[in-house]
Amino acid sequence: MPHDPLLLTPGPVAIPAEVAQALARPVIPHRSAAFASFYQALQEDLRYLFQASGPVAVMTGTGTQGMCAAIYSLFRPGDRVLVISAGKFSRRWADYAAFAGLQAEPLEKPWGQQPSPAEVLEAAARIPGLRGVVMTHCETSTGALLDLEETLFALRAAFPELLTLADVITTAGISPLYVDAWGLDAALCAQKGFMNPSGLCCLALSERGRQQLRPSSPADVLNWHNYVQAAEKGFFPYTAPVNLLYGMEAALGMIRAEGLPGVWNRTRQSAERFRAGIQALGGTSFPEQPADALTVFSLPGRETDAIRKALQEQHGVLISGGQDALSGKVLRVSHMGLADAAAMDRCLVALREVLGE
Amino acid sequence: MPHDPLLLTPGPVAIPAEVAQALARPVIPHRSAAFASFYQALQEDLRYLFQASGPVAVMTGTGTQGMCAAIYSLFRPGDRVLVISAGKFSRRWADYAAFAGLQAEPLEKPWGQQPSPAEVLEAAARIPGLRGVVMTHCETSTGALLDLEETLFALRAAFPELLTLADVITTAGISPLYVDAWGLDAALCAQKGFMNPSGLCCLALSERGRQQLRPSSPADVLNWHNYVQAAEKGFFPYTAPVNLLYGMEAALGMIRAEGLPGVWNRTRQSAERFRAGIQALGGTSFPEQPADALTVFSLPGRETDAIRKALQEQHGVLISGGQDALSGKVLRVSHMGLADAAAMDRCLVALREVLGE
Repeated sequence: MPHDPLLLTPGPVAIPAEVAQALARPVIPHRSAAFASFYQALQEDLRYLFQASGPVAVMTGTGTQGMCAAIYSLFRPGDRVLVISAGKFSRRWADYAAFAGLQAEPLEKPWGQQPSPAEVLEAAARIPGLRGVVMTHCETSTGALLDLEETLFALRAAFPELLTLADVITTAGISPLYVDAWGLDAALCAQKGFMNPSGLCCLALSERGRQQLRPSSPADVLNWHNYVQAAEKGFFPYTAPVNLLYGMEAALGMIRAEGLPGVWNRTRQSAERFRAGIQALGGTSFPEQPADALTVFSLPGRETDAIRKALQEQHGVLISGGQDALSGKVLRVSHMGLADAAAMDRCLVALREVLGE
Repeated sequence: MPHDPLLLTPGPVAIPAEVAQALARPVIPHRSAAFASFYQALQEDLRYLFQASGPVAVMTGTGTQGMCAAIYSLFRPGDRVLVISAGKFSRRWADYAAFAGLQAEPLEKPWGQQPSPAEVLEAAARIPGLRGVVMTHCETSTGALLDLEETLFALRAAFPELLTLADVITTAGISPLYVDAWGLDAALCAQKGFMNPSGLCCLALSERGRQQLRPSSPADVLNWHNYVQAAEKGFFPYTAPVNLLYGMEAALGMIRAEGLPGVWNRTRQSAERFRAGIQALGGTSFPEQPADALTVFSLPGRETDAIRKALQEQHGVLISGGQDALSGKVLRVSHMGLADAAAMDRCLVALREVLGE
């Protein structure tokens, strides 16, 4: 490759040097007082990230595992839940909820769209005995953003007893998210907003969300109750992933130093800069309401796979293609973390060259 | 602390510089051909570690999660399993098996002992319709080693249809283990033998073990079937923990370069050197048949907690105390990985000073 590689896939995300160095720090025993004070301080950083004042906890595992565990921990077999389904990732939650024994009622939208607050409300009203709503704040396969704030506002006004769970994997630490102020009961995120390697997932809960958790057994490794209860004392119910937590602490330190509004603005500017460049190249943004985390776009009349390959081989720029229904039809570029304006410019220059413009 | 800290707890284990650097390497997309060839090569390294030729796979999660997932994946609700229970860790597997819906029949031994092959055989013979045996190769709370080779030999001869699952968390990459030659159906290990941070667990299976796995759903995140099937193609069923796998690759490279017999001998020598020193100080090794991974010992007439504290505060040497029934009664020192002869000498010198000998 003629250049340093530039990783612009919307997962995995590039890891800053500060985080990489933190991952390599000497481990400390995870049952020590030093660990407990470290983990309690980390929970404060997480509360800042989520803009939440309630319980937070970390689990060793992928985002998928964390989200499946959240569905399993918050609901009970037989519970009826509305699952918004509008792309590869959100669609899975309906299957996952069904696997957990819930009666999952999908609210389907075409890929590239998300339902309006009114549509969510209407769907909720049609389901008797509804217990909760499972949402995906940013659908990473299509780039479409759900208006989570207004949706939660509408739901709370009409059905105050509903429990709300959102996958915020590509919004926490990326674009505006206020767990407390918006009244979200449970928010699940993984490493993307943390500019970290995969391995951890985090849950923030409202007090009402906390009360849904039920004690079971230490053998119940997917029960968030075990993690939340131990976290309150500064510990993990099992071996703590100390080094991964160091990486998380480093990223959260960077986010706190910049401030969430600064992070959100930078990400937004990166997205706008990239989208202007794509438009100038004749490209079209795919979703109706694009999220800031990534741009999903098509280049009419062009072979997306060939473009992606040429970007990587000739320019060292790694971007993603479409998934499932969008395979071969779109390209996906991250604006998260290190994917700043300069990175966008390098990607656009490379893209222009590949397209022969 | 007057010295560089020396981490000699039997978990977490100290991480070599090579592994720390590997953890910090730039991430690659986990759906790429480059990742697939990397992960397939890593599986070969794992086969060497386990001395196994069958399927192997890695899961993001703690050792506890991996072991619970192995019990859940290999057995079915209602299956009767014999669970050897002789310390904090092995005792938990009976509870965890019961939580998975199995009929767990514990074979209890006093802490510090492990059952003989004849005792395991006798217990197995008493249980009609027995499906499998769950064992802990080295019980890390007591330091007692199970004679896994002879136990498996006896079980295979008398009950060839029994499925055998062993926690080898403190033997794989530490002391002799031959999954194929001993005829073990499933071996589960985590990070300790890999000199890595917590975050991953690994399973090696016999062909018969592989056949017990059943397809379910991608939502079944604890089903090893999903991981083994994806691993065969070089992938993970969910986001791959790329950086943690880099760390694992680095440790396995070090182990392959030294050779397993070299690693086993070094660990054994470290254990013997330390035990001779402890004996000279009037100490007593606790278990009947000590494993090589760690020494669990008492110092008659001495306050173990005060010793541990003084070692840490005055000498920067971190060791562990006893757990549960052994709390306040024993000390535990690792001989794994970086805990080599020089580290043992530093620990013994510090201990002698603390004891005022």
